[in-house]
Formats: sequence, structure tokens, C-alpha cells
Amino acid sequence: METKYNLDESKLPTHWYNILADLPFPLAPVIHPGTGQPIGPQDLAPLFPMSLIMQEVSTERFIEIPEPVREIYRLWRPTPLFRAHRLEKALGTPARIFYKYEGVSPAGSHKPNTAVAQAYYNKQEGVKRLTTETGAGQWGSALALACNLFGLECKVYMVKASFHQKPYRRVMMETWGAKVVPSPSRDTHAGQHILEVDPESPGSLGIAISEAVEDAATREDTKYSLGSVLNHVLLHQTVVGQEAKLQMEMAGYYPDVIIGCVGGGSNFAGLSLPFMRDKIVDKKNMRFIAVEPEACPSISRGEYAYDFGDTAETTPLIKMHTLGHTFIPAAIHAGGLRYHGMAPIISALCYNKLMEARAYHQTVCFQAALEFTRTEGIIPAPEPSHAIKAVIDEALACRQSGEARTILFNLSGHGHFDMSAYDSFLAGKLEDYAYPEAKVREALARVPKVGV
Amino acid sequence: METKYNLDESKLPTHWYNILADLPFPLAPVIHPGTGQPIGPQDLAPLFPMSLIMQEVSTERFIEIPEPVREIYRLWRPTPLFRAHRLEKALGTPARIFYKYEGVSPAGSHKPNTAVAQAYYNKQEGVKRLTTETGAGQWGSALALACNLFGLECKVYMVKASFHQKPYRRVMMETWGAKVVPSPSRDTHAGQHILEVDPESPGSLGIAISEAVEDAATREDTKYSLGSVLNHVLLHQTVVGQEAKLQMEMAGYYPDVIIGCVGGGSNFAGLSLPFMRDKIVDKKNMRFIAVEPEACPSISRGEYAYDFGDTAETTPLIKMHTLGHTFIPAAIHAGGLRYHGMAPIISALCYNKLMEARAYHQTVCFQAALEFTRTEGIIPAPEPSHAIKAVIDEALACRQSGEARTILFNLSGHGHFDMSAYDSFLAGKLEDYAYPEAKVREALARVPKVGV
Repeated sequence: METKYNLDESKLPTHWYNILADLPFPLAPVIHPGTGQPIGPQDLAPLFPMSLIMQEVSTERFIEIPEPVREIYRLWRPTPLFRAHRLEKALGTPARIFYKYEGVSPAGSHKPNTAVAQAYYNKQEGVKRLTTETGAGQWGSALALACNLFGLECKVYMVKASFHQKPYRRVMMETWGAKVVPSPSRDTHAGQHILEVDPESPGSLGIAISEAVEDAATREDTKYSLGSVLNHVLLHQTVVGQEAKLQMEMAGYYPDVIIGCVGGGSNFAGLSLPFMRDKIVDKKNMRFIAVEPEACPSISRGEYAYDFGDTAETTPLIKMHTLGHTFIPAAIHAGGLRYHGMAPIISALCYNKLMEARAYHQTVCFQAALEFTRTEGIIPAPEPSHAIKAVIDEALACRQSGEARTILFNLSGHGHFDMSAYDSFLAGKLEDYAYPEAKVREALARVPKVGV
Repeated sequence: METKYNLDESKLPTHWYNILADLPFPLAPVIHPGTGQPIGPQDLAPLFPMSLIMQEVSTERFIEIPEPVREIYRLWRPTPLFRAHRLEKALGTPARIFYKYEGVSPAGSHKPNTAVAQAYYNKQEGVKRLTTETGAGQWGSALALACNLFGLECKVYMVKASFHQKPYRRVMMETWGAKVVPSPSRDTHAGQHILEVDPESPGSLGIAISEAVEDAATREDTKYSLGSVLNHVLLHQTVVGQEAKLQMEMAGYYPDVIIGCVGGGSNFAGLSLPFMRDKIVDKKNMRFIAVEPEACPSISRGEYAYDFGDTAETTPLIKMHTLGHTFIPAAIHAGGLRYHGMAPIISALCYNKLMEARAYHQTVCFQAALEFTRTEGIIPAPEPSHAIKAVIDEALACRQSGEARTILFNLSGHGHFDMSAYDSFLAGKLEDYAYPEAKVREALARVPKVGV
């Protein structure tokens, strides 16, 4: 029985696919919060190298992947695509379940696909040092790896609560040579200000972003790097979906349903956008399902509006599904899904009904992950466990209806650094957090009234 | 630049290679400690299924891999072989460095190669439940995975000190459905006896083996499973070296030197035995280097003698390099290398000068691992870090001599569960343990006088 589709290294994509070339609607411009006007490349220049700024707004359909980036990709790419025969059998479903596995990268997730590209372009433009924020550490470790491979310094502002509770991702970043500080830190004005008000502040992703942005904006040799949300980040992730298309051809099936978890949207976009092109251009009849945590359901329950990307209101305004930039989600284990907003591309696709979203509580996702690992072997990270829950529900619907649909999902990372979460789940101690209706209402009231 | 050699799934080996068919000397028989006579298959029947006992003594050159085992292998095999261009460049060496990477298995090491085979044969013979011991948990998690995939119960006796200090491997085993107890436990007479004498006993691998063996020997539905040392375990690991031979052909080079770390010997044997055949049969001029920890250097400093495989003297006597079965090694981070003995096949190859051994302290190995991860990306487990130290030394010797030797080593697992060890190393807190001369002399005095 064939279960794994390995793509030959010669088939590693040569270009990223840019959905902006094919969107059937214009993407809303990014707005300067002071002027209310669309921002230009120069507004972003203190934070990003010009090549990435140009990618952010490019409408070129295919953008060439520089050879030094492909050389690093080859350390783990092409990644395997599996058919989950054993899971299908356990579910008794006629559905065909396929998954692309991104956990084989040295950092254990899809994040290095963009981290490597970002480090490369910064290096090309003479940048010496990158800053970023990280929650549980998946993005920070990817950027630490990438900076190390291109000889850049890397400074990671890690949410203080995670810094102390989950030290292993911190050690991973340090092993790759990054400097990691708990945020709020004394290294920035933003951090100092928070610490003056509350010396015991556990930090938040919003605070950490403010620190990383301030650090980059105030140092000549330094730029800032973001792991999701932005167009160029989603662009870099399309290597995933392009490989998956070739591998689905090898398997002899085309997906009817594509599923991925969404935090900022990059892993879902990476797998789905090359297929989305077929839906837009070739009118393929297929469904796309973005899966969110019930504790932070930006698409399912948020507003589609202009909002800040961070809590401290230092970023431009972007049109997206948002729960409000002051909303702080509950401490679910899927740290990568705890973001108040959503990538503008994903938001626009949802708003235009080209895809759908749904939300689950974390315990049912861990139950789905357990069923997956006990049939397929791989232990999923808590984030893609949300995708797995939706996959199982779709497969069970096929059992009900007798339809042999082909389901494809992105297993975006392994759970080796999340064993304490599995421990809680197995011990029956994992809690769910009800959708925080009142908190969201309060946060939505603080969304700026722009372009309404 | 080509750096990764992916083998097509159609090239997954169909047979294991059995070096017993080609050894230029007879392997000393296993001896019954009571009678002093060679044991027969029936003596092992309470512990192992007959198919594995027959593999243990088979001299058939190629033994077919059952299709259900190959089906599971395909979840992660063939594993990639890399050329470490970036490490070569950093070292400024003319040597060509290649490594086979076994960390891509769901358990993160080479151990599932035999765990899956053992679970399969036990299942075939109607066994319902397997027991084993584990130290840091690498072997236990591999067996937990394999038992889960074949629907067997699995009970793991985990050394109590590790059970409490390193909970994440325990959770991994439980995630795959295994029952894990700290050893010494109250579940066996052996465990009860130890706890009576010392209720606070931190346990040891020797005690855990005694418990797992007693459990299997006293229950009709249960057998015992071992993760290294025995001939059939080394046999199953030869998928590694067979794949590597094909991949080295793809790369266009044949190794001059093959390097691996050794605890019981299985990962080293897995990579090297298919090449050893070329040395024995075709008189290839090549070197094999087994790398040990200075804290437990069985080959480098032990005696080649009949000894027990466990501390409690419950196993048969096997001829091997040993530091004495009562020797308890210091608590180095490379838990998989803390074994007093050595596989009989590896021992005999060393004794007959077909290979060599050397020993290193752990800090220099972590330094080598750091150099590796900062050039190649992958974070190695502490065990293969020993191999990496020897690889770097060999490569630097090539720089000195100007020789462009081809070096191949086994990167037997990743270090995701060893980040606290890296943390100690990076903080300069890692200790070395001098070779414990007096303790070894004492233990060697307790080696039984058999066949001398």
C-alpha cells in the first residue's frame, strides 16, 4: 500500500505563486493611521527591506525564488505528502484523506519557508540584524535558524509567560545563536513603560511586537521580521501548495476539500492558494475550510474592518477580520492561533465567499490529534490539530453520505515541544474557554473608524 | 548545490542484511549461566517469539522484510542522506562529509526500525502485550509507537530518575497508548525487592530490565522486547545502511570512513554492516569508527568477555566488550550510550580489528553538535553528537593532510527532547565525568569466569 508521495528534489518550485495576480477583486489598500491615506513603500522602509516591500504589493503572478533560498529549502524540501490510509480505515470513511507534512523542517514547522526568504533579502540589502516577537516560540525559532544560516544577528522578544513556562523553544533559538529576552523587557521604551506600570506583567504578543518594531525602527543596522499575516509571508509559503499539487497528481486525485488551521493565515494560505487559483481561474468546484480556535475566532465571529496589527497601535491599518487589536485571547495551547486579526488575503477570500471558516474548542482538537497520532504515527502540534478535527468531521460526513471526497490538509508542524499540553489532555485536565463575547465586544469598540 | 539525496520509495529495501553470513570468524555462542552450555531456542521462548529467536541465530544472508513492516517503514522511510557542504566549508576541509538522517521517524530516532519489526512478529505469533525498559525514553517511545500501530499493549518500565526529570518522553509514550511506570515499581518482585531495601531508589537501566523481563516471563500473553545489542535488532537496522549505499551511489562517492556512536551498537551497526560486507568480501580499504562516551567506554576500556546483559543477572551470558554488568555509568545526557556492554557482533568486529573505537567527553561532543546545527540546521541528539565530534576530528585531519576523504556518519536522532542539555551546555554548566577507573575495576571483578 502506497502511503507517502516523495517529490524529487528537481521538482522543488522555482517560483512563488502570487494570488494577487488572480484575485477577482481588488485588495483594500493598507492605510496610514495618521493620514487615513494609503501608505507607500517609503512608509515601510524603516522596518522592511525594499525587496520585501515590493513583494508585498506586487501583482506579478510568479516571483522567482532566489537560488540561495532554494539551497536552504533543500535541507528539508520537498516535504512529503501522505495518504492517511490508516486514519481512513479507522474512521470507516469512503473519503480519501491526504496531508502535506511541514514538520520535517529543522524548526519543526512551515515557518522557515518565509524566515529563510526574509533573512536572505535582508542580508542582500546589507541588514546586519533582525528583530521579531514570538509567543510559544515557533516563529522565533524559525527566524533564529534562518538568521544563523545567513549570518545575521537575531533578537527575539519572547512573551514573558512563555519564556518562563516553555523554556525549550527558547533554548532552541539560543542554540541557533539568537538572543532571546522576555518581553516586556528593559531594552525598549515600550517595554520599560509597561514595566513601570506593572513590574510583574506576563507580557503579550502585542507588547512583544511593539518592542521588536521599536528596536528595528531605532537602529540603522536592524530590520523587523513578521511570521504571518502579510502578503509577502503568504507568498513565500506557496512552495507548500505547489509541491502538494504535483504530489496529488502523483497520487492521481484532485482535492475536493482543502483544510488548514488559521492564526495569522500563513500555513493555510501556503497550502491552499495555488489550488485557489484553479477555483478562481478554472472554476474548479472545491471547498476551502479555515479552522480557528473557539477562543479566538477572528473570521467566524470578528468584523471585517480596518484595524491595527498590534495592541500598541504602532502598525499601519489593514483591512481584515479582527476581534479588535486590544483583544487578548485565552491561553490555549495552540499559541500560533492566538492572534486577533487575520491575513488580508484570507480575510478577503472569506468575505468574497471563496472559502469558509469554522471554530472548535481545544479539547475536541486534542482528541482528534490523538486519533491521528494513534493511526498515522506523527504527533501533531496543537495548531494543526484544529485542522485535523475538521478533517475528521468532513470524513465522517462522507461516511454518512457515502461520498468518496478527497480531503487535503496541512499538517503544519509536529508536537515535540507541546508534550505538556498532551499530558494535560491525557490526564483530563485540559480546559476549554468559551467564546469571550463581552471582551470581544469591548475590543471591537476600540477598532478605529476608518474606511467605514 | 545539491545537498540532499532522496531515495525513491520504490527503493525501500526488501530484505535485511545479515552479517552473520559473511563474518570471517565464528560468533561465540550465548551461554546459559547455570549450565555453562550454549543455550537453545527453547531457552529464549518465554521472552521472545520464535521468529525473532530464529533470526537471532540465522546465517541466511538476506532475510525478507514482511510487507506489513515495509508498509509502516514507508511512513518515514527511505530517510534522507545529506552532504554537509556547509559544515565542510566551515571546517575548511577537503573531506566530503555525508550523513544519513534517522530523526525523521515519528519517534525521532532509528529505534522504530526494529520496534516495528519486533511488534509485527510478536503480533503474528499471537502475543497481546510487550514489555520493555527505557532510560531517557527513546527506545520506549519507539516501541510504544510500534505497538500502537499493530494493536499491541505496551508496558514500559522507565528508570525512575528519568521518569520524574524528563517527563516529555513519558507523555510521548502515553500519547501512543503505552502504560509507563517508574522503575523500580511495585508491579514486579524485582521492583518490590529493590524498594524494600531502598524506598527512594532512583532506579537504573539494569533494574528496569529485570522488571520488564520478569513481567514478560510470568505472563502467558506477554513477551519482552529489547532495543539494541542482540543480533536480530542489528539485523533490522540494516535498512539504514542499505539505503545509504544506494544514496552514496547517487552522490557518486564511496565512503572511506564510516562513523557512528555506540551504546548497545544498533545505530552504528545499521549504517555500517552493509558496508562492512564490502570490506570483508570485496576487501574494500575503509575504516569504521565507533564512538563512545568517556564515561562509559565499553570497547575502548572494557574487557572482551562473557557477561550478563543486565545488573540483576537474569539474562544469558554473552561474549562482548563489557565494563561489568554491575557498573552504573555517570548521568551523562546521552542516555542511549549508558550501557555497560556492547552488541556481540560489534564486539567481535572490534576484537578482530575490522573496526576501531574511540571515546570523548560530553562537552566536546556538545560543542561539535553546536557547530553542526549552526551550519546544517538540524539539532542532533546527544548520542549522535559523539559521532559528530569524531567526524569533525577526521575532517580536520584531512585539512592537515590535504586528503579528500569521504566520511559518512549516522545522525541517528534529533535533539528536540534534549533542549535542557543544550541549555546547560550553552550556560557553561555542563560537566564532564572522568573515566571511573576504580568503579570499572570493581565491576569487572564481578564478571563471571566463563569460557576464559
